[in-house]
Amino acid sequence: MKKHILVIPGDGIGQEVTQWGKAALAQIAKNFGHEFTFDEALMGHAAIEVTGNPLPDETLEKARKSDAILFGAIGHAMYDNDPSLKVRPEQGLLKIRKELGLYANLRPILLFDELLEASSIKAHILQGTDILFFRELTGDVYFGEKNRSEDRNTASDLMIYHKYEVERIAHKAYQAAQQRSKRLCSVDKANVLESSRLWRETVQEIAKQYPDVETEHMFIDNAAMQLIKNPKKFDVVLTANLFGDILTDEASQIAGSMGMLASASVGDGVGFYEPIHGSAHDIAGKNLANPLASILSAALMLEISFGLPEEAKTLVNAVDKALKDGYRTGDIADNNTDAAKVLGTQEMGEKVLS
Amino acid sequence: MKKHILVIPGDGIGQEVTQWGKAALAQIAKNFGHEFTFDEALMGHAAIEVTGNPLPDETLEKARKSDAILFGAIGHAMYDNDPSLKVRPEQGLLKIRKELGLYANLRPILLFDELLEASSIKAHILQGTDILFFRELTGDVYFGEKNRSEDRNTASDLMIYHKYEVERIAHKAYQAAQQRSKRLCSVDKANVLESSRLWRETVQEIAKQYPDVETEHMFIDNAAMQLIKNPKKFDVVLTANLFGDILTDEASQIAGSMGMLASASVGDGVGFYEPIHGSAHDIAGKNLANPLASILSAALMLEISFGLPEEAKTLVNAVDKALKDGYRTGDIADNNTDAAKVLGTQEMGEKVLS
Ligand SMILES: CC(C)[C@H](C(=O)O)[C@@H](O)C(=O)O
Ligand SMILES: CC(C)[C@H](C(=O)O)[C@@H](O)C(=O)O
Repeated sequence: MKKHILVIPGDGIGQEVTQWGKAALAQIAKNFGHEFTFDEALMGHAAIEVTGNPLPDETLEKARKSDAILFGAIGHAMYDNDPSLKVRPEQGLLKIRKELGLYANLRPILLFDELLEASSIKAHILQGTDILFFRELTGDVYFGEKNRSEDRNTASDLMIYHKYEVERIAHKAYQAAQQRSKRLCSVDKANVLESSRLWRETVQEIAKQYPDVETEHMFIDNAAMQLIKNPKKFDVVLTANLFGDILTDEASQIAGSMGMLASASVGDGVGFYEPIHGSAHDIAGKNLANPLASILSAALMLEISFGLPEEAKTLVNAVDKALKDGYRTGDIADNNTDAAKVLGTQEMGEKVLS
Repeated sequence: MKKHILVIPGDGIGQEVTQWGKAALAQIAKNFGHEFTFDEALMGHAAIEVTGNPLPDETLEKARKSDAILFGAIGHAMYDNDPSLKVRPEQGLLKIRKELGLYANLRPILLFDELLEASSIKAHILQGTDILFFRELTGDVYFGEKNRSEDRNTASDLMIYHKYEVERIAHKAYQAAQQRSKRLCSVDKANVLESSRLWRETVQEIAKQYPDVETEHMFIDNAAMQLIKNPKKFDVVLTANLFGDILTDEASQIAGSMGMLASASVGDGVGFYEPIHGSAHDIAGKNLANPLASILSAALMLEISFGLPEEAKTLVNAVDKALKDGYRTGDIADNNTDAAKVLGTQEMGEKVLS
């Protein structure tokens, strides 16, 4: 199989971790006789520094021409500390999501047995958890009109949904639920928000087309609680952009660490694969970041964009093997970890590829 | 001391649990020689059924004339299942918050040693956690303009903040931080939302007036994760209405159960005290609800509205004693609980009051 992959490292640890996602793809190509070519492009703070633009046209062009995109992370403390800055790294990520029509963000909460103890949650609560989040990614308060009054004392963001936006991601989530345990939980705040009432009505309608799937509706506050209380009760979770952002980060604690979670953004065309962790500037460039989420993002790419489940499984198994052999990066090490087996980004990357 | 207290049981288990908050107040009055008089009023589904209005004028009048309000819970599955209903129970709660200017919602995450094991989170992660949430309560997407297009296919809610709204609750939170460990974490989504950027700028300004308090800013997605990963790192948490709704429900798992958490809503005038749990219609009327959050809400009333810390402490100690003696309601029972000590609402209420 011939594929052209665009790598966008982005900011902070994005630079170090995507290197390993890319290396994993190259290794798979070699072992399975595929031909993967790679290109690279700028986004975020890294792009602002060079071009003044968080998403340069060149990056967008390269993205449209690629068969899949491997992304790292975005953001920089400089902007976080100064809310008045007009040009911001995150605008690049939001714009590429919108431009490429990446409306469905899939975030599987994959539990590795070896990491059960790395979580702050009790192992018996976690054991057997297997959640697949469908986070809507191109609507909501992320993309609604933003306003700041002239005196700068009032600021607003419009939380807005169109029915078709809810429908298309609901279909994707229901189809996934049919392939899994046939349970879907839709999360909203319909007791307060009109946009959530549209969300709930629409999901109720779509649900009728999937009578074999059991649907539950839950308020976001309750869901944030239940996810910790009893994660096993969830299977497919369908939710809006903002609620999905919050819930999936929270759910990273189920998998032991944010450093383990990959995500796939899909929709109208090319697929976009990224770890759910952020740019973590505090540890960037120190060989401390966990490269496993980037490698697992590469696995999602193989499975979803290229239809290569065997190749994907090979990568997941390689990660599993490294963990089984006791190797950990700092974020997933615990008291039982052999200190000699706590690895840096580079060493963990090499371990998995070998 | 003479005080007039309005009791608003509301919906579902609100009916059963407020009875015990009220009884606790009556008992305190008796023991300490105060004169507490009580009145009762309708709100939510209970009010809609009788008057067609989730917040009847009579309730609002009684509320304005009282010295403090003890509230139960709100909501009913009937409305949750039918997003098209125009009159909804929650409108009553939102309206009373707005009308009484209850802009600061204080939610202390109080950990009882005996309940460490009832949580899904590991005891050593929880031990020593002591968080005080300040949730803004009369602004945000809760109160911004709602719209539904004529064809009903587009729906929106305006997420909006005015600077003065951020300032007044920030002052309250900083003042509390000064009395505690002098650490404050403000939670927002300033990397995406304009309203959050106003929030962050304003908190940065107010922070300068409290140089003895150490301020941290955190994104909501990260906060939802850190709260589970390492709850001890938080002390005072200041956040907006929607983010506070989500984070505090999530944080209830730190305290072992939603059934344990009380909250105080204060602002321009009379204070409003309520458990953070919902109406839980599935267990309503079955003598299964945990009355402790209502009793702890009464304790908050004694402390905050009446300035009676001794009396408040007496109630908290009584709850502590019942737990130390091994008594539990179903929601906080675990494998180590003596089955004979799993109590109903009524029995737990009596146990605490004795
Ligand atoms: C960086 C930020 C804009 C982004 C988001 O909120 O979507 C990130 O948190 C994510 O979840 O991908
Ligand atoms: C019932 C609902 C409107 C309310 C809210 O979202 O504020 C509740 O969840 C709470 O936290 O008090």
